[in-house]
Amino acid sequence: MTLYEQLVDDLENLIRTGVLRPGDRMPSVRNLTRSRSVSPGTVLKAYGILEDRGLIEARPRSGYYVARPASATLLEPQVDAPYDRSAPVRVNELVFDLLTSAMDREVVPLGSAFPSPDLYPFKRLFSALAAAARQFEPWHTMVGLAPGNYELRRLIARRYLEVGCAIGAEEIVITSGAMEALNICLQAVTRPGDVVAVESPTFSPVLQAIEVAGLRVLGIPTDPVQGLDLQALEQALVRHPVKACLFMPNFQNPLGSLMPDEAKQALVELLTRHQVPLIEDDVYAELYFDEDRPKPAKAFDTEGIVMHCSSFTKSLAPGFRVGWVAPGRHAEEIRRRKLINSLSASIPAQLAIIEYLERGGYERHLRRLRQALKTQRNRMLRAIDRYFPAQCRVTRPAGGYFLWIELPIEVDALTVHREAMAQGISVSPGPMFSAQGGFRHYLRLNFGQPWTDEVDAAMQTLGAIIARLALDADSATR
Amino acid sequence: MTLYEQLVDDLENLIRTGVLRPGDRMPSVRNLTRSRSVSPGTVLKAYGILEDRGLIEARPRSGYYVARPASATLLEPQVDAPYDRSAPVRVNELVFDLLTSAMDREVVPLGSAFPSPDLYPFKRLFSALAAAARQFEPWHTMVGLAPGNYELRRLIARRYLEVGCAIGAEEIVITSGAMEALNICLQAVTRPGDVVAVESPTFSPVLQAIEVAGLRVLGIPTDPVQGLDLQALEQALVRHPVKACLFMPNFQNPLGSLMPDEAKQALVELLTRHQVPLIEDDVYAELYFDEDRPKPAKAFDTEGIVMHCSSFTKSLAPGFRVGWVAPGRHAEEIRRRKLINSLSASIPAQLAIIEYLERGGYERHLRRLRQALKTQRNRMLRAIDRYFPAQCRVTRPAGGYFLWIELPIEVDALTVHREAMAQGISVSPGPMFSAQGGFRHYLRLNFGQPWTDEVDAAMQTLGAIIARLALDADSATR
Repeated sequence: MTLYEQLVDDLENLIRTGVLRPGDRMPSVRNLTRSRSVSPGTVLKAYGILEDRGLIEARPRSGYYVARPASATLLEPQVDAPYDRSAPVRVNELVFDLLTSAMDREVVPLGSAFPSPDLYPFKRLFSALAAAARQFEPWHTMVGLAPGNYELRRLIARRYLEVGCAIGAEEIVITSGAMEALNICLQAVTRPGDVVAVESPTFSPVLQAIEVAGLRVLGIPTDPVQGLDLQALEQALVRHPVKACLFMPNFQNPLGSLMPDEAKQALVELLTRHQVPLIEDDVYAELYFDEDRPKPAKAFDTEGIVMHCSSFTKSLAPGFRVGWVAPGRHAEEIRRRKLINSLSASIPAQLAIIEYLERGGYERHLRRLRQALKTQRNRMLRAIDRYFPAQCRVTRPAGGYFLWIELPIEVDALTVHREAMAQGISVSPGPMFSAQGGFRHYLRLNFGQPWTDEVDAAMQTLGAIIARLALDADSATR
Repeated sequence: MTLYEQLVDDLENLIRTGVLRPGDRMPSVRNLTRSRSVSPGTVLKAYGILEDRGLIEARPRSGYYVARPASATLLEPQVDAPYDRSAPVRVNELVFDLLTSAMDREVVPLGSAFPSPDLYPFKRLFSALAAAARQFEPWHTMVGLAPGNYELRRLIARRYLEVGCAIGAEEIVITSGAMEALNICLQAVTRPGDVVAVESPTFSPVLQAIEVAGLRVLGIPTDPVQGLDLQALEQALVRHPVKACLFMPNFQNPLGSLMPDEAKQALVELLTRHQVPLIEDDVYAELYFDEDRPKPAKAFDTEGIVMHCSSFTKSLAPGFRVGWVAPGRHAEEIRRRKLINSLSASIPAQLAIIEYLERGGYERHLRRLRQALKTQRNRMLRAIDRYFPAQCRVTRPAGGYFLWIELPIEVDALTVHREAMAQGISVSPGPMFSAQGGFRHYLRLNFGQPWTDEVDAAMQTLGAIIARLALDADSATR
């Protein structure tokens, strides 16, 4: 351990064991420099890391203080009343408004579905692309046709091995991002009118894809920490003719929940017994904040019922539109659907990613990205703690870039959305994530933007809006 | 006019007016050099052009001869018995076999759906991409989200102007190739179970897209020269609940037919009266061999019922997967469908094409491409004339890269396909282009490959296979 790592460790222990308590002033830099016989730079570096971890906070002209830990004051949101009847879906206007606002640089994009593109290594990607272009032969356009460039599929298969999945390159089909993968998986295992089970809440493009395919949706209650309620799923499988499940066991959108490995295994066993295919959306798995990449449900699949969908969009190359699916026993059908849907993924994008992966540096980039997102999560949790009314509850996800916030029950998230937009701030109101307009007092906030004064101010504004709406409702009912 | 152009003109006139007849020996190079007071190079250049046009042919060690014009001996194929009841579609295994064989470099790809990638300016495209990458900002990934990069949409709108279509950049939605555009258009204007009218024959991915969407297909008889039979379409509109039409007025695949402008206008008027949307697949329009780019049906659309789909795949950048749709009155709906289907087209590909178009050189490339395809058409027509049994009929398309061949009625195209594949040659048998397995004695051949001895030999082999099958059938019935 280096000197500053040792210092971080010691101070963190003091905080965790309560020797230093929330609100306490931390030792001054000069003090520590002398007592530990280290340079001031070492102390400042250690304090920076503790700050990133949300353990301490700097107060201007006053020094460092132990932060109030977010988890102590911010309770986890409850499971909202689930809907257990399958229903046709209605496309939500809101989603398109929010996507449009994501393209407006003037809006603080707390409602965005995307992390900041500044977090991604475009310089290295384009330099990899230039190198690939020098070796390009026109014939590569044929080789890149569905199921996709073999070398890329081989590299993806190699990464699967590292999380305990033995998937052959032959099984993998390259798609135009994970969204296309989800769509063709849905098409492959359902017919119009069929029932598809999803987590409740779930992200709106999935609800819309289900609507577009003429399917009916069944929401399964999902815990903000542990994920899918397996008992509720089991009952649903008995009571409804569920033809497919579409779940996100790792860092679910919008909840950020992470199913424990045993629950994933139980899920796959349950679905195998019922012979219901699982479309697994695993696009956030690389964005974990703890020790190891969480396993996909696919790792527990012995009979090929899991269609594992992912992409490089969130982890490496936004906008390149290179995703894939490992479709298990449905491989042949998926290859065909991909051809019919859009022939192949874009060749320059495939070549750029192959060259990038072969050059190395992906792991280094991922470490930086995870650290950045974790820091931003902590900053946003602290901002909520500071600016939002005390009745608000919030998740503390171990990965991804979304917080799920339960507002005071009398506050309408759609009103929050409207008032925030009027002040140049987007948020994602809960009803976006429900086929039936539920989750009316919930918000999803995006912490994928580097923390700036502007974001901090937006959080303060948002907190004030929520507080005022709660107060208004309070006086109206009196 | 330059000297060689004058010479080409004069000789062409002599042939067309019958002064020089099929089989006649052309004047020797030495002779013309003297009589016209030009250099031997000028004569050879003129002879090269006449050869490309299919008017003369070189015989080794013997000089140039007037070619037998293909149109005199090769009759146009007839319209096959159409199917006028709508029917559910059955996906054709064959199509996937052929797509797989297109990726096998050892196979002579006469059955391929793609022209040779060697005909495209990849060097310049990648150099444009490198320049675009130098100006890249991460924010561009947001700007490229559906409906797509505005600059690209503006450049596409400008090209529309040149063919008499006033389409605003705002109307255009960028897609992952034209195939995705066709799919989302179908989704936008139909519900499962609806009837969609297509040309008969039509290319198989369209039939499969219709099947995947749970729709029923109605084949409208289509003439190999003039295209769609409007009377038959009118009857169909009266007798069937047609919800959408998907047609290719320009260089239809597989026929190569070209609807006259008046017919296109009548088509749009007819569909406007019936309020049936037209999904226009116009991907081959830039590959014309005569004076001007043929107009799209969209040019005659006054009420926004035409959804015009095209792409850069056939004209500029195979494998980049950049297409678009100008969806008329369905613009809003298409924008949404595109977002749900795959979010955006690949950003590097969009940027490369913008930079390429802005640098100029597209027209020069297109002229070269058209000339190459025209030359290859003529070569293949001559090869058919020389190697195929006399009963074969063939189209002489004015654009695209497909020939449609009617075999002797007793020859089964599926048998031809099997026997040709055994010799390393792919062909596209007629039943691929029919929802009901019709067109059993038709073939589609691809003349998109530069003419080589290998292609010539493949045509000779193919001719021999067809001749033998015709003979076998003949003796079997005796």
